[in-house]
Amino acid sequence: MTIEQKINAVGRMVPTTINGVKAIPFKGIGKYKPHGKKHAPYISSCVDFNSDGNKLVESLSEALKKCGLKDGMTISTHHHFRNGDLLANEIFDIAKKMGIKNLRWFPSASFPCHEHLIQYLEDGTISHIEGSMNGVLGKFCSEGKMKKTAILRSHGGRYQAVQDGEVIIDIAVIGAGCADSFGNANGLYGPSASGLLGFALADSEYADKVIVVTDNMVPFPCVPWQIQGNNVDFTVKVDKIGIPEKIVSGTTQITKSPDRLLIAEMTAKFCEEAGLIKDGFSFQAGAGGTALSIGNFFADIMRRKGIKARFARGGSNKYLVDALEEGLIQYILDGQTFDLEGVRSMRVNSNHTWTSPFTSYNYHGKGNFAGMVDIAILGATEVDVNFNANVVTHSDGYLLHGIGGWQNCLFSKTVILPVPLFRDRIPVVKDEVTTICGPGELIDVIVTERGIAINPLRKDLIDILKDSKLPIKTIKELKVEAETICGPMEKMRISEEVVAAIKWVDGTVIDVVRKVIHKV
Amino acid sequence: MTIEQKINAVGRMVPTTINGVKAIPFKGIGKYKPHGKKHAPYISSCVDFNSDGNKLVESLSEALKKCGLKDGMTISTHHHFRNGDLLANEIFDIAKKMGIKNLRWFPSASFPCHEHLIQYLEDGTISHIEGSMNGVLGKFCSEGKMKKTAILRSHGGRYQAVQDGEVIIDIAVIGAGCADSFGNANGLYGPSASGLLGFALADSEYADKVIVVTDNMVPFPCVPWQIQGNNVDFTVKVDKIGIPEKIVSGTTQITKSPDRLLIAEMTAKFCEEAGLIKDGFSFQAGAGGTALSIGNFFADIMRRKGIKARFARGGSNKYLVDALEEGLIQYILDGQTFDLEGVRSMRVNSNHTWTSPFTSYNYHGKGNFAGMVDIAILGATEVDVNFNANVVTHSDGYLLHGIGGWQNCLFSKTVILPVPLFRDRIPVVKDEVTTICGPGELIDVIVTERGIAINPLRKDLIDILKDSKLPIKTIKELKVEAETICGPMEKMRISEEVVAAIKWVDGTVIDVVRKVIHKV
Repeated sequence: MTIEQKINAVGRMVPTTINGVKAIPFKGIGKYKPHGKKHAPYISSCVDFNSDGNKLVESLSEALKKCGLKDGMTISTHHHFRNGDLLANEIFDIAKKMGIKNLRWFPSASFPCHEHLIQYLEDGTISHIEGSMNGVLGKFCSEGKMKKTAILRSHGGRYQAVQDGEVIIDIAVIGAGCADSFGNANGLYGPSASGLLGFALADSEYADKVIVVTDNMVPFPCVPWQIQGNNVDFTVKVDKIGIPEKIVSGTTQITKSPDRLLIAEMTAKFCEEAGLIKDGFSFQAGAGGTALSIGNFFADIMRRKGIKARFARGGSNKYLVDALEEGLIQYILDGQTFDLEGVRSMRVNSNHTWTSPFTSYNYHGKGNFAGMVDIAILGATEVDVNFNANVVTHSDGYLLHGIGGWQNCLFSKTVILPVPLFRDRIPVVKDEVTTICGPGELIDVIVTERGIAINPLRKDLIDILKDSKLPIKTIKELKVEAETICGPMEKMRISEEVVAAIKWVDGTVIDVVRKVIHKV
Repeated sequence: MTIEQKINAVGRMVPTTINGVKAIPFKGIGKYKPHGKKHAPYISSCVDFNSDGNKLVESLSEALKKCGLKDGMTISTHHHFRNGDLLANEIFDIAKKMGIKNLRWFPSASFPCHEHLIQYLEDGTISHIEGSMNGVLGKFCSEGKMKKTAILRSHGGRYQAVQDGEVIIDIAVIGAGCADSFGNANGLYGPSASGLLGFALADSEYADKVIVVTDNMVPFPCVPWQIQGNNVDFTVKVDKIGIPEKIVSGTTQITKSPDRLLIAEMTAKFCEEAGLIKDGFSFQAGAGGTALSIGNFFADIMRRKGIKARFARGGSNKYLVDALEEGLIQYILDGQTFDLEGVRSMRVNSNHTWTSPFTSYNYHGKGNFAGMVDIAILGATEVDVNFNANVVTHSDGYLLHGIGGWQNCLFSKTVILPVPLFRDRIPVVKDEVTTICGPGELIDVIVTERGIAINPLRKDLIDILKDSKLPIKTIKELKVEAETICGPMEKMRISEEVVAAIKWVDGTVIDVVRKVIHKV
């Protein structure tokens, strides 16, 4: 059967049906408006729960059985434990033992530690993954080995899909660093502390059945309740839920690469010259080496100017925490903590506030936080001459990364992508990106070690920077420079077969990933 | 038209239709199970909101117009400002000016300060009230002057009704001590600080349109966000939203009445002898003079025994805060703050945690906190020989009080009602209560200044206390004693006409209030 495909608003050919469900091609930013009502979960009753609040069952296996685990269900998990997660693998080990088939796995993200699950994708225990695939599972998907089409969403898009009933979760399994037997849970305490549990919020609110699993059960009340026990059906105590050193790093490190440091410094200078760094401003940077370094440069500028940021968005880390404690930043609005200092700060400092994809990123809410951020510093695997950018595939066509909050952050007031001009002699700036994850009209500035390109739509920035000594170039100049240095590229070898769809923040399909023809 | 009435599980005749909507007679505790799905609000989109998050409009009037205020709508407000509220009156002044009619007012509670609204109940601007009516509005209702039937719900029942779609709120107006222009709001700061905003939670989540009004607008982010701006449509800044000294009292005071002190001391002794006060126990007492005094006696016992309470439920006040700060209580799980010390503590102490009717009381959730409380100390206007109790009407038939969290707290492990045997020579313990708000099987102990009655269902307590020197009596003995002292009572003069329905926590009708025939 041939599935109808249509060209969407960024010129990509996308299917109008995915896994048998109607899909809407991307219509342009703000052009698609949702209709109808949010997903309505079943009404529960206290009659069905112990009045003393104890929801503890013997094992994860028992909890899954009590939730009625059966063929074809949708099981959600979360990536708070990142590459140290032990829970997702265990869930599907249990499903396999029970002989369950055709499960849709709906993680907020998957990591190399989930390579274990390839066997279940192969034997049909899991039909497919809807969620970010970092590394090996992405490679598996890229090679067309998954039985159905993967769907990738941003953090906000995942909340939106659950809220809107696009994805109905049968069973949500929420791993928590700390919980009580009622199901109140947080990620702040215990050996598997991860900081916060925001990625599981939608699941706790909308899933039919919710299981909280912890290796650190405390007496009621588990305070704060980042996940509310009132939404939880069963709780499980296990010996070990994650590998601490892979959940949060002991410390995050700023880059030592001279090229990356140069990019970071140029980015900070650009922001200063553009007048973006002023009293009460706000910014979001990631926890990569370059982003951390930019945060440090921002701090230097703030000290020098004697100004404060009203807030910084996390991923938090020790550098951001230092700035908070120094008083350079008034609030950290944190979506995930990347190191132990972030976790500590969130525990003790009420100005280090946990957020969720609902507050920060849900496009089908009454606004969200993303648009209030003055400067968003984001990454990309590729950028094209129209400022479209890619974060999920490499230039060889392999899907190796998730979207994270990247698409959502594009709504910030000024979006800057500090990227190297090329990586391993492969250009980052090119004529056309392999996969469009974000439309160029939302991306304002590209900073590379060899020049800075400002989106022509941002006439204001071009005007302010017109006398700058920074190496302002056009994006096409950057592209030519990259091509000249790298020389002719091998053409990527892909087939027509769609293996994954990339959703935009409103649930429409902005692009697809097609099967890579494996090099022999 | 005669409305069909049926006898419910506590023997009260109740209508099967209220205001044209089907009503289910109370079936017994845990006997009614809900079907179907929660109310599903419309999906919103960021497209319809300023991307910088600013939702500020010029005035409350403009906000109401933008929300499409029209005849027959349901308008919700909240009682965080208690008798110092200025907002509800203003809403209906605006509606009156706009010529709007037939509004259903759905407050979490109303107070004497809302006497102003009687004119609108008379002229048809407001058709009726669904919510607690403390004082003058209750009297108005009791005399059959409201155009439709009032419906009273507990705090948990109000959440349940909104969640389940029994009450669909068109416009929620949430007054907040502190808010940002995006709509994030809390009750912790500013001249109208009220502590928390939990009573507005359901409304913010489920209403079609949500307006946040404050006299203390702060720059984004307003932290903590007890109300999430992502659920808010419009924000309004006004000069003055409440009268501070009527919102929270400067200080709460323990009783000085010798009789009340005696009751308090007997209650505490009873709890100690019954073995209820032990390490890690929990309790809930109100902020009335007797309850405060009981809390103090509990503290004395804890100090003497060298034990701690795991948590206390608020209404918080300075006595509870003192106990928290002394380390006698590990957590205060607070539903509303009654004095400035409560507000201060909630601001600075993360172990003084704000709760909501959802976490604490919603009977149509996956459990709630009420059942986890070891000792609940509650009041009553009347108790009968079957331990049924009344909190809304007086013995003359007048509806003068709301239910509050009272029905919800009946699910605590041991429920104790410390009440005077009579008030103003009118017995509190009697053959039959005027209005049944709580079934006797959930009420364990009645403590009066002349004796303590234990519910025969609590054989364990009767057994433990069998050698006690406390004046343990039967409830019938107490009743006879009350009657003997007070002498014959004037019969209350009521008609058959139903003026208000009392809902149970599961949405069924446990009793009604009938029209009082006014004494001439």
